[in-house]
Amino acid sequence: MLSVREIARRVANGEISAQAALVESESRIEARDGELRAFASRPQALVPGEGPLAGVACGVKDIIDTADLPTGMGSSIYEGWQPRADAAIVMALKAAGATIAGKTQTTAFAFLDPAPTRNPHDPTASPGGSSAGSAAAVAAGLIPLAIGTQTGGSVIRPAAYCGAAAIKPSYDLLPTVGVKPYSRSLDTLGLMAASADDLGFALAALTARPELDAAEASLEGLRLGLNRQEFAEAPEPACEEALQRIAALAGQAGASVIERAAPAELADAYKAHGPLQDWEATQALGWEYANHRDALPPKLRAYLDQARLTTPAQYDEARRVARRGRHVTEAWLGEVDVLVTYAAPGEAPATLASTGDSRFNRLWTLMGTPCLTVPLMRGPRGLPVSFQLVGRFGADAQVIAVAKALERLIVAAA
Amino acid sequence: MLSVREIARRVANGEISAQAALVESESRIEARDGELRAFASRPQALVPGEGPLAGVACGVKDIIDTADLPTGMGSSIYEGWQPRADAAIVMALKAAGATIAGKTQTTAFAFLDPAPTRNPHDPTASPGGSSAGSAAAVAAGLIPLAIGTQTGGSVIRPAAYCGAAAIKPSYDLLPTVGVKPYSRSLDTLGLMAASADDLGFALAALTARPELDAAEASLEGLRLGLNRQEFAEAPEPACEEALQRIAALAGQAGASVIERAAPAELADAYKAHGPLQDWEATQALGWEYANHRDALPPKLRAYLDQARLTTPAQYDEARRVARRGRHVTEAWLGEVDVLVTYAAPGEAPATLASTGDSRFNRLWTLMGTPCLTVPLMRGPRGLPVSFQLVGRFGADAQVIAVAKALERLIVAAA
Repeated sequence: MLSVREIARRVANGEISAQAALVESESRIEARDGELRAFASRPQALVPGEGPLAGVACGVKDIIDTADLPTGMGSSIYEGWQPRADAAIVMALKAAGATIAGKTQTTAFAFLDPAPTRNPHDPTASPGGSSAGSAAAVAAGLIPLAIGTQTGGSVIRPAAYCGAAAIKPSYDLLPTVGVKPYSRSLDTLGLMAASADDLGFALAALTARPELDAAEASLEGLRLGLNRQEFAEAPEPACEEALQRIAALAGQAGASVIERAAPAELADAYKAHGPLQDWEATQALGWEYANHRDALPPKLRAYLDQARLTTPAQYDEARRVARRGRHVTEAWLGEVDVLVTYAAPGEAPATLASTGDSRFNRLWTLMGTPCLTVPLMRGPRGLPVSFQLVGRFGADAQVIAVAKALERLIVAAA
Repeated sequence: MLSVREIARRVANGEISAQAALVESESRIEARDGELRAFASRPQALVPGEGPLAGVACGVKDIIDTADLPTGMGSSIYEGWQPRADAAIVMALKAAGATIAGKTQTTAFAFLDPAPTRNPHDPTASPGGSSAGSAAAVAAGLIPLAIGTQTGGSVIRPAAYCGAAAIKPSYDLLPTVGVKPYSRSLDTLGLMAASADDLGFALAALTARPELDAAEASLEGLRLGLNRQEFAEAPEPACEEALQRIAALAGQAGASVIERAAPAELADAYKAHGPLQDWEATQALGWEYANHRDALPPKLRAYLDQARLTTPAQYDEARRVARRGRHVTEAWLGEVDVLVTYAAPGEAPATLASTGDSRFNRLWTLMGTPCLTVPLMRGPRGLPVSFQLVGRFGADAQVIAVAKALERLIVAAA
């Protein structure tokens, strides 16, 4: 599979047609998706657009409205549901010339009940969730680009489990209009691709912000904060190994690796993610819960049974704690250029019954900070294990720039 | 028409049935709506619910999703469109026992092209917009409660023009899930009713926050800030007269009326409303603009033609200015208990071609502060003229408490 940038370059040069690039994706999907089950629905034909992403076949998570493809939300309640309009992100894709390759499988309403998708590295392991289809389709090389959403860890986690690069940009950088809400203060659109370089290229094209297609950062003298998210249970040893490996690579390239424990306020903020999401999810899925509770999958049903007991006072307190946390995060992250931490608690779970654990992603989603992961290594079970970069709110370009430098080191060291 | 609180009291006492209260609304709608044109669609029958709002027939603006009534957005593009799920606010109404009386007319996508609704006081005058049907139906006494939305001045302005009470609560107090977005940082749900007392009662019932059903404030020693929104063009003399009249009433009742000019940062924030809304509306209506531009009404079409020229840098700057403005507003409003200012620039326009002007509402929508208006007096053309209370973000209960005290003075002075 050609990279997003390479497709763009060749199409612009006239080396290949946008149609030919799409046919390449189409034939890979035809060949592999029967097993992988990354797609929920697909158009009759992939028609090329015009713009910087012409020829780029992009998967769109199936909680995102599309005017010409059904939007099933991963749930029988929305089976065959056909929205009237495209979501804003779909319009942004089309405006940039990308072609919607299809809707990608999601866990029901982007919660924890597994999607049918398989991990491309091991069909018995979880692809993660909730953006399972987007991560698997990109990691398997079916498509060069896909859109996911993250409320806890639903972009970074499946990407890390499947071995894709992914960015969850700063909150609201990508507009969520037309995305089925789960928790409106948390829901964030993200991108998956083969590399940080592609993420920057695509994000710039989708936002009309050319600075997001950032040049590779110099690691010489870069202050790389190393954080272990002490407020959460420790990960598997392979994740610690990955963290040390990337820190060592960066250090050898001239970066100052500085251990940074999280301020106490962030441990409070980490806990506030729960009641905040609980209250908002109860509202977002109020119709489904009241009218179709029995059709909800078991984890989501049990979750909502509990979540609806959240009180306004608990929600308000969670918002206050989150607000304080954002102020503290801003200052704390300002002490370094970028933070490196765990992306996930381990390799993908060795089961299709779990989508894994978002404990190393939730805080950053709540803080609204940009997060990025690129593939690094394999763990003891042969599955991808990686790390996560975190930057200050709005510093998406910087995170991309550093990720590009690190991924060059990773390739060189391989 | 009985008040919301009186319906609730009588239903709870067994003096009337919830069904009888609904029949009362239904027959008023049947009698008057042919002329008033407040409703876009209505259910076959009004079925009573259970809860504090049992027997309360509530109008719901037609940009708010309903699972069993079409949602036309005031536009031919969505004619007959039937959403799958109820919006969160509709679920909140149902959970509180209210009955959806119907969908109320809205300007197309809540912008400035007039809805077909008439002003109940003068069929040749504007009812305002964008929540025209909600304001007119409540002001005409067809229903005791209605839901609107405000992005500029679309709750307070039509209420002031039609002579209804209305509250635009703090941003995000009422969840906008399932409401067609126009500008996501601004869009705020609001309530219309006959009095501040009813607004507090209904808002408490819809949010499970009993403190919003606030007791009447004591005016003795209350610090009432008087502000003329100097950053905007002066209103018609009747609006200044209304402001002085309510200040005099409050002063006679023991309040300290303190003139408060707005800090310079708020004049900047006032101007930032434009580019912020422009950028977000371009995204929110991207599909409609790209696919159905010719079907958009002329003001919205011309607006989007211009709005799409907004750059990311202009949007980012508007967000920064708004953030600074919110900090300044918080401190500035903290110097008084509540602010009183103009609700609208005059009586309702003497034309059906304009929905009037939101210049005295836009800043507060951007600041996210609670705003409330109650009927006060008539202007030279015999149409309602009133004032607006503004409180600190989150101080909705205080605004309601003061409004209740003021409306008692207004009734006593009448």
